[in-house]
Amino acid sequence: MKTVAIVMGSDSDLPVVKKSVEILKKFDVPFTVRVISAHRTPDEARTFAASAKDEGIGVIIAAAGKAAHLGGVIAAFTPLPVIGLPIKSSTLDGLDSLLSIVQMPKGVPVATVAIDGAQNAALLAVQMLALSDDALMKKIEAYKEEMKEEVINKDKTIMKRVVEEI
Amino acid sequence: MKTVAIVMGSDSDLPVVKKSVEILKKFDVPFTVRVISAHRTPDEARTFAASAKDEGIGVIIAAAGKAAHLGGVIAAFTPLPVIGLPIKSSTLDGLDSLLSIVQMPKGVPVATVAIDGAQNAALLAVQMLALSDDALMKKIEAYKEEMKEEVINKDKTIMKRVVEEI
Amino acid sequence: MKTVAIVMGSDSDLPVVKKSVEILKKFDVPFTVRVISAHRTPDEARTFAASAKDEGIGVIIAAAGKAAHLGGVIAAFTPLPVIGLPIKSSTLDGLDSLLSIVQMPKGVPVATVAIDGAQNAALLAVQMLALSDDALMKKIEAYKEEMKEEVINKDKTIMKRVVEEI
Amino acid sequence: MKTVAIVMGSDSDLPVVKKSVEILKKFDVPFTVRVISAHRTPDEARTFAASAKDEGIGVIIAAAGKAAHLGGVIAAFTPLPVIGLPIKSSTLDGLDSLLSIVQMPKGVPVATVAIDGAQNAALLAVQMLALSDDALMKKIEAYKEEMKEEVINKDKTIMKRVVEEI
Amino acid sequence: MKTVAIVMGSDSDLPVVKKSVEILKKFDVPFTVRVISAHRTPDEARTFAASAKDEGIGVIIAAAGKAAHLGGVIAAFTPLPVIGLPIKSSTLDGLDSLLSIVQMPKGVPVATVAIDGAQNAALLAVQMLALSDDALMKKIEAYKEEMKEEVINKDKTIMKRVVEEI
Amino acid sequence: MKTVAIVMGSDSDLPVVKKSVEILKKFDVPFTVRVISAHRTPDEARTFAASAKDEGIGVIIAAAGKAAHLGGVIAAFTPLPVIGLPIKSSTLDGLDSLLSIVQMPKGVPVATVAIDGAQNAALLAVQMLALSDDALMKKIEAYKEEMKEEVINKDKTIMKRVVEEI
Amino acid sequence: MKTVAIVMGSDSDLPVVKKSVEILKKFDVPFTVRVISAHRTPDEARTFAASAKDEGIGVIIAAAGKAAHLGGVIAAFTPLPVIGLPIKSSTLDGLDSLLSIVQMPKGVPVATVAIDGAQNAALLAVQMLALSDDALMKKIEAYKEEMKEEVINKDKTIMKRVVEEI
Amino acid sequence: MKTVAIVMGSDSDLPVVKKSVEILKKFDVPFTVRVISAHRTPDEARTFAASAKDEGIGVIIAAAGKAAHLGGVIAAFTPLPVIGLPIKSSTLDGLDSLLSIVQMPKGVPVATVAIDGAQNAALLAVQMLALSDDALMKKIEAYKEEMKEEVINKDKTIMKRVVEEI
Repeated sequence: MKTVAIVMGSDSDLPVVKKSVEILKKFDVPFTVRVISAHRTPDEARTFAASAKDEGIGVIIAAAGKAAHLGGVIAAFTPLPVIGLPIKSSTLDGLDSLLSIVQMPKGVPVATVAIDGAQNAALLAVQMLALSDDALMKKIEAYKEEMKEEVINKDKTIMKRVVEEI
Repeated sequence: MKTVAIVMGSDSDLPVVKKSVEILKKFDVPFTVRVISAHRTPDEARTFAASAKDEGIGVIIAAAGKAAHLGGVIAAFTPLPVIGLPIKSSTLDGLDSLLSIVQMPKGVPVATVAIDGAQNAALLAVQMLALSDDALMKKIEAYKEEMKEEVINKDKTIMKRVVEEI
Repeated sequence: MKTVAIVMGSDSDLPVVKKSVEILKKFDVPFTVRVISAHRTPDEARTFAASAKDEGIGVIIAAAGKAAHLGGVIAAFTPLPVIGLPIKSSTLDGLDSLLSIVQMPKGVPVATVAIDGAQNAALLAVQMLALSDDALMKKIEAYKEEMKEEVINKDKTIMKRVVEEI
Repeated sequence: MKTVAIVMGSDSDLPVVKKSVEILKKFDVPFTVRVISAHRTPDEARTFAASAKDEGIGVIIAAAGKAAHLGGVIAAFTPLPVIGLPIKSSTLDGLDSLLSIVQMPKGVPVATVAIDGAQNAALLAVQMLALSDDALMKKIEAYKEEMKEEVINKDKTIMKRVVEEI
Repeated sequence: MKTVAIVMGSDSDLPVVKKSVEILKKFDVPFTVRVISAHRTPDEARTFAASAKDEGIGVIIAAAGKAAHLGGVIAAFTPLPVIGLPIKSSTLDGLDSLLSIVQMPKGVPVATVAIDGAQNAALLAVQMLALSDDALMKKIEAYKEEMKEEVINKDKTIMKRVVEEI
Repeated sequence: MKTVAIVMGSDSDLPVVKKSVEILKKFDVPFTVRVISAHRTPDEARTFAASAKDEGIGVIIAAAGKAAHLGGVIAAFTPLPVIGLPIKSSTLDGLDSLLSIVQMPKGVPVATVAIDGAQNAALLAVQMLALSDDALMKKIEAYKEEMKEEVINKDKTIMKRVVEEI
Repeated sequence: MKTVAIVMGSDSDLPVVKKSVEILKKFDVPFTVRVISAHRTPDEARTFAASAKDEGIGVIIAAAGKAAHLGGVIAAFTPLPVIGLPIKSSTLDGLDSLLSIVQMPKGVPVATVAIDGAQNAALLAVQMLALSDDALMKKIEAYKEEMKEEVINKDKTIMKRVVEEI
Repeated sequence: MKTVAIVMGSDSDLPVVKKSVEILKKFDVPFTVRVISAHRTPDEARTFAASAKDEGIGVIIAAAGKAAHLGGVIAAFTPLPVIGLPIKSSTLDGLDSLLSIVQMPKGVPVATVAIDGAQNAALLAVQMLALSDDALMKKIEAYKEEMKEEVINKDKTIMKRVVEEI
C-alpha cells in the first residue's frame, strides 16, 4: 500500500497532528511524519515534494497555521493529492490558516479540512487510498458503522441522562 | 476507470460547475452530472450517495451555495471521497458556503476547495483517481508542465507590456 | 399537546441543550431528547424527521456545531417547523454553526436563534405551540411579566450597588 | 385562520418582502403588510405589537436592514412568535442585519431566516400556523413535493445541457 | 449641570459599566444608573427615554451586548444624544454588539464607542456637556494633560525596564 | 451658535459627506468644510484641531476611509467631541474604516456612526449643540415628528402597493 | 542603485501592479517586472529569489491574490526585504490575500501593504533604498511635500464646491 | 549603523515588544525604545517622527493595538520606512489593529507584519538596514541557516516522538 506522509510546519503542531496518526494506525495505513517548513526549510519542502511519488507516498497531509503556505508549496512540486490541515493559532482563531490553505488559485488544488480537523485529514487520505483497495474501503464502511453504533448508543441513554441531570 | 460524479444543489450553479466538466473532459475522465438538492430532494441524495460506489463512481464533487449541506449529506452515505465546492451566493461572498462545507465534524470529511474553485475540484478528483492509474498521473504531470510553460511565456513578455502600457 | 423534540448532533452539546429542557419543563410542554447526527446516523435522522409529525411531535429543535447540517437535514424530511440552535465550537466562535444553519436556501426554512441560545430555542417552540393553545399563550405572557419584574427589581437596587462598589 | 403580519422597517425593503407575500398568497394565508420603524415610529411599533394577538394575528414577520431592531422591538411587546428577516444593505452584505436580529438575548427569541430569505420567512410562518391546521399542513407537504419534482426535472435534463454547452 | 444617565441592559454589564461611573465621578458630573432592558422592560425603556429630557438628563449612555437594541430603542424616544457602549458577550467577541449599535439607519444616530470602552463612553458624555460649560471643558483639558504626563513618565523609564528585563 | 466643522480625509469623500451638509443646512447650524489628511497634511490636522475650540467650533465630524486615522488624530489635539464617519472604500466594505475609528483606546473617544452614515453624523452634532440650545432641541423634536409622519404615510399606502404589484 | 523587482503571481494582476511601476518611474528607481507563480512555476520562484541579491536586486515586491503564497515563498529563499501586495480577487474582497500574506510565522517576515495598495508597495521599496541614498531620501521628502500641496489645494476649494453643489 | 526605534502606544505592549528587542540584540543592531501615544502624546509623536532621521534613526517599528494609529501618525511625519506591529487586544483578536495599520491610504505606507509578530518586525528592520551593510546581510543569511538547522533537527526526531507518544 502507498504511504501517507504527514508534514507539519512546526513541531508545535504535533498535539493536533497526533490525531491524524491515530486514525492511520487504526486503518493500518503506513505513514511517515515530517517537520518541514515552507519558509524555513524550503529546499527540504521541495525535495520532499518532488520525490514523494517515487518514494511510494500516495497522499500528503500538510498541517500549518497562520499564513499556512505548506500545503500549497508541496502541491506545487507533486502531482499527488495534497490535504491541507489548518491549525488554529494564537490569533484569529484559525481563519487565517483556513483561508491561506483553501483559497488556492486555479491549477493547484489543496483538499482542505476543518480547522484542527486532524482526524478528517487522515480519513480523507484513507478514502483516497481506498479507491484502489477494496479491503481498505471495507474498513471505512466498518468505521462508519462503528461511528453509527456509537451515536445510537448515546441516543439510547440521553433521555435518562436528561431526566437525571435536570 | 471510475467515474467522477458532479452533483450541484441547483442548476443555477452550472456556470461555475462547467469549469469542472471542462477539466474532466481534458483528462478524458468519465463523468456524470446531476442536480440533487440536500433539502429539496433528500431521498435522491441518499439514493445517489448510497449506491454511488456500486455504480462505478470513484469520486463525488458536490457544489452548493449558502448553507451548503450537500457535500456533508452525501458524505454521510458513502465511503467514497467527497469534494466540496463552495459556490458564491448573493450575500456574504461565499463565506457561508465555505464554512458550511469545510467545518465538517470528526468522522466525515469533505475535501474542500476554494470558493467557486471548480477547476481545482475536478483536478483534485483526477489526482485521486490517478493514485491507481499511472497514465492519468502522467497526464497530471503534463498538465503541470503546461501550466508552467504558460506562466513562463507570460513572464517573457511582461516587461515589454509594462514598457508599452505605462 | 404536541411534543417538542430536541435533537442534538452530539451528546457533548448537552450542557447547552439542557437549558432548552429547563424551559420546556417550566412551561409543562412535553418533550423528547435525542442524539442524532446528520453525518454519522443519517438514516436515523431521516426516519426521525419523516415520522415526527405522525408521532405527535409539533416542533423540532436541532442543536449542532461547526458545519451544522442537522437542522437542514431534518427540515428536508418534515413539514413541521424546525428551530436551529447553533452551538459554539472550539474554533470560529460559533460563526460557522450560525451561518451553516441560518443561510438555508429557498424552500426549506430553519428558524435560527442566537449562538448557544438554548432558552430562546425552547421559548420559540413554546410560542409556536401556543398559537393554538390559549392556556400556554397565557403562560408566555406570565413569563414575560416575570422577566419584567426581575429586571425592575434589579433596576431598583442598581444605584445602591454602584454607590457601594465604586 | 390567523393572519400573518409582515412588517418592514422601510418601504425600500418591499422588493425583498414581496417574495414573502407571494408565498402567503400561494398558501391562501391571510396577511397584512405594514411599514413600521423601530426608530422612527416606535409608538406605532409598540401599539401594533401589543395589540397584534387580539387583532387575530398569529405570526409576525419583521424585515429590517443595518442595525435591525424591528424584530426585537416587536417581540418585546407580544407573546406571538416573531420571524426576523435580515435585509442586505449597502454595506457589510447583510452581516450587520443578521447579527442584530439573530443574537437576541435570553427570554425574547426572534426566529431568524437567511439574509434576504423572504420566501423562507413566509414558509416558516405557514409552518407555524399549520401546527393546528391539517389542511395547511397538507399544502406544505404538497409544496415540498412540488419543489422535489422541479429539482428532479432539472436533474433529468442537466446532462443534456452539459453536453450541449461544453 | 445636566445629568448623565447610564442605562445597562442587564446587571451583568456592571463590571464594565463601572468604569463609566468612575470617569463621571472624577469629573464631578451628576449621574444616574439604571437597569432597563429593551426587550424585557420595553415600557420602562420608553418611559425613561421619553421623559429623560424633562428630568434634567443631558446625555444617555446605553450599554448592551449581543443584539444590542437598547441604544436604538432609547434614541427613538428622545431628542437627546445617546451614546452606545457595546458589551463583549460570550460569543463573537462583541462584533454582534458593535454592529447592532453602530449601524443605525438614517435619522436616529447612536454615538458608538469601542467594545467594552466604558471610560470613553463617559468621556464623550462629559465632552458633550462641556460644550456649554467652560469649567468642565477646562477639566477635560486638564485630564488630557494628565494622560500626557502619564505616558511621558512611562516613556522616561521604558528603556531602563527593557535593559533590565531582557 | 457654535460651528460644526466637517473634515474629510480626501475630497473623494464629498459625495457621502454632502449628506451631512444637507442636514446642517436644514437645521440652520453654521458649518465649515475642510479637506485635511491625517497622513498627508498632519500639521494642518494638528493646527486645525488645536485651534478649533478657540475658533468657535463646537463639534467636529471627521470622515475617512480605509485605515481611518483622521478622527483619532483630531481628537488627540482637542477637548471637543469628535464624530467619526467611516467611509466605505473599494475593499472590505468599510469594515476597516469602522474598526479604525470606533476601537479608540481609553482616554480619547471618537463618537462613531454607521458606515457612510453621513446624515446621522450631522444629526448627532446637532443633538450635541442642542444640549444648550432649546430652540435647536425643538427643531430636533420636529424633525423626529416629520420622520414619523413620513413613515406613517408610507404605512398607509403600502397595502395598496402590495396589492397592485403582486 | 539597487533594482526593485516586482513579481506578480498572474499577469491578470498587471492593472493593479502598474501603479507600483508608475511610482518607481517617478522616483527613477530601476525596476524589473516578472510573472512568477509560487504554485505553477515554483522552481522559477526559487531560482529568482535565491539569486536576486547577486543580481543587484535590493527589494522585492510580490503581488498575489487568494491564497497568496508568493511573498512567503520568495522570502524563504532570500535575505532581502520582501514587500507583499495583496490583490483583491473575485471573492472575500481581498481578506484571503491579506491574511495569507501578513500572518507570516516567526523568522520570515513579509512587509505587507493595503489590499490593492500598489503605490504604497513601491513607495515602501523606495524608502528602503533611500536608507543609504540621500538623494533618494530627498525625493521622498519632496514627494511628501507634493502630496501635502495637493491636499491643501483641495482644501482651499472644497467650501466653494460644497456651496455650489448643495 | 543607523538605529532602529521601537515605539509602543502603551507600556502594556512591552511583553510582545520585548521579542523585537531580543532580535535586534541578537543582530547587534542599535536600538531605542519609546512609549509614545498617537492619541495621548501626539506632540511627542510628531517631534519624535519629524526628527527621527536627523537623530540617526533608520527604521521605526510602531506597535499598537485596537484603533492602532501610531504607525500612520509617525509615517506622516518622516520619510523613513515605518514598520507596523499590530497588537492583539482584549476584543476582536487583533483584527482591528491589523486593519487600522495595514489599510493605509495611498502615499503613506506602513510595512505591516503579523498580529503580535514582534520578531518579524525586528527582522524586517534588520533586512532594511542590511541593504547597505554586507556584514549585516551575512548575519541574516546565517540566521536563516540557523533556523533551517533547527527545523531539520526537529524533523530528525519527530518520527521517534510520534512512535513514543501515540
